Amino acid sequence: MTTIHELDTPAVTIDLDIVERNIARAQEQLARHGVANRPHIKTHKIPALAKMQVAAGAVGITCQKLGEAEVFADAGFDDILLTFNILGASKTERLAELIRRTKRFCVVLDNEAVARELSDAGRRHDVDIRFLVECDTGFGRNGVQNPQAALDLAQAAMRMPRMQFDGLMTYPKSHQDETRLFFQRALQLLGGAGVPVPVVSSGGTANVAGVGELSMVTEHRAGTYIYNDVMMVMAGAATWDDCAMRVRATVVSRPTDTRAVLDTGSKSLTSDYKGVVGHGRIVEYPGAVIAGLSEEHGVVDLSASVERPRVGEIVHVIPNHCCVVTNMMDEVYGVRNGNVEVVWPVAARGKIR
Amino acid sequence: MTTIHELDTPAVTIDLDIVERNIARAQEQLARHGVANRPHIKTHKIPALAKMQVAAGAVGITCQKLGEAEVFADAGFDDILLTFNILGASKTERLAELIRRTKRFCVVLDNEAVARELSDAGRRHDVDIRFLVECDTGFGRNGVQNPQAALDLAQAAMRMPRMQFDGLMTYPKSHQDETRLFFQRALQLLGGAGVPVPVVSSGGTANVAGVGELSMVTEHRAGTYIYNDVMMVMAGAATWDDCAMRVRATVVSRPTDTRAVLDTGSKSLTSDYKGVVGHGRIVEYPGAVIAGLSEEHGVVDLSASVERPRVGEIVHVIPNHCCVVTNMMDEVYGVRNGNVEVVWPVAARGKIR
Repeated sequence: MTTIHELDTPAVTIDLDIVERNIARAQEQLARHGVANRPHIKTHKIPALAKMQVAAGAVGITCQKLGEAEVFADAGFDDILLTFNILGASKTERLAELIRRTKRFCVVLDNEAVARELSDAGRRHDVDIRFLVECDTGFGRNGVQNPQAALDLAQAAMRMPRMQFDGLMTYPKSHQDETRLFFQRALQLLGGAGVPVPVVSSGGTANVAGVGELSMVTEHRAGTYIYNDVMMVMAGAATWDDCAMRVRATVVSRPTDTRAVLDTGSKSLTSDYKGVVGHGRIVEYPGAVIAGLSEEHGVVDLSASVERPRVGEIVHVIPNHCCVVTNMMDEVYGVRNGNVEVVWPVAARGKIR
Repeated sequence: MTTIHELDTPAVTIDLDIVERNIARAQEQLARHGVANRPHIKTHKIPALAKMQVAAGAVGITCQKLGEAEVFADAGFDDILLTFNILGASKTERLAELIRRTKRFCVVLDNEAVARELSDAGRRHDVDIRFLVECDTGFGRNGVQNPQAALDLAQAAMRMPRMQFDGLMTYPKSHQDETRLFFQRALQLLGGAGVPVPVVSSGGTANVAGVGELSMVTEHRAGTYIYNDVMMVMAGAATWDDCAMRVRATVVSRPTDTRAVLDTGSKSLTSDYKGVVGHGRIVEYPGAVIAGLSEEHGVVDLSASVERPRVGEIVHVIPNHCCVVTNMMDEVYGVRNGNVEVVWPVAARGKIR
């Protein structure tokens, strides 16, 4: 069996003990509140890991792109929510095919143009289109802007052929008061109009612990919790011990007393995120700051670190944002007790369409 | 023939007329000063484009990773400079193999630990290791810190078995005064010690036009010039008309009067770069600002744009940093006169080692 020490750098390792603990903890937190777990696979893009999530109790998965859903349908997943507006004949044809080959496939929409295209595709391809109305409850991305608009869009879309309204969906801000008020009013309006709302879907790893604050939520979509990262630790949603992903790197240069350079840059760690100081946490040198990235260089400021590495030393970096690191990798290494237990191809990497 | 309009989004297109013009212009600018052109392939990672650069007069290519060099050696390139410190038995073995199968293969180093490993590998694998000493002339990444250190390292490495000193290399700051002073003094010291310096290698697209300011430079490594991007326009090294790369995207949502959302986010455009306002320039709506990115969403602020797109409309984004967009793509589309002339797999994408 290969040991971690034999892995050339850079390489992304996934600690399997931590992953198993993270999966169990989120599942338990959501189950305690009777909320279904529908993990977002964008974080790992690996069917074997989604199977572990389903084995632990997840009802199905969430994908963000048709290409991701196709990879996971190929791997046997048959209950998929696709949380992105689908437009264009090429995509609606692929959607119809996914609906035909799964037990339950649901999409979202936040405007009538998308609803019309989906309805046309449903007729053309002879499939029913199950949809959630996406609500912008404060995050400021996609979504209808108020509860009345949610009702109006749900009703408009339901009047179109082959369209089946399944409920509401949001990606909430971490502070959830606005989301509660939005959903309360929207459910009141939909109830008043006699429209059943089987699903109310929320999301985000930072919101798993507080899912009980939103009593109307029936299912939750979280991605990052399976690996965790600097962002989640900063948000108070994880500790360093909960971080399963590491970018294994070599110190290739020590140009000055206070500078080290790693063989991992933005092509592994990515330039995410602006809110965090530094580009990842070096486990062995927590006082060091990855101050700058080129594509293949990580420039480390050692000023605040008493211990300083030598050229050739191996270090491990917890990335700022694990989901985007996944997308840079053709494969990752599942490790336990110092050994590489499994090599996973990142099957849904790079599925931009 | 497929037209651009048939390409589903997101997709990365490369304007072939602009690419041909960019290749010719940089070649001419460098040739005018008698400086050899050794383009950095990290920008495109596509052998067919490097062949166009060589056909226009480039002496060889620059790579940043062994994995890139292997792809290009497979494609027939036999004069390669690898501008990254190589460490570890797995990598030095691959290096020896590359040296054996090419006419001229050169690496860089900036410390004795790397020199010793290379020398050991040269003995072990029975190959000579041709190297440049990397100099930090002000950029603050890898490199020896002063001209005396360049001499000392060159001499120390030359004393090691199988090591052949070939000259000096830097990635300069855009302001080149420090680089000139560093190289002048280093050449003086090396000359005084009787050490011939066949190669003095500089780099950067922003420095192509000013290459004449560094009279000692014998070759130049530029990457971005083949595509150009927002960064290069901001640096004054290109105009919008020189930007060959576009991310083709669909407006999937118009949640508010001043907000549009594109189906392209950090998984295509990447989070590079902090120095620029917005995450790319929308060609059709130059007053719009891509204010935020999620992995699959580009959130556009339309406040300053009188014209505003509708849902379903296609737009084209010039990315902030084209090299990192390349690395996100399995393939890109070479286009001319509205048609897709060629589909290029990004052969050296994701070569992190």
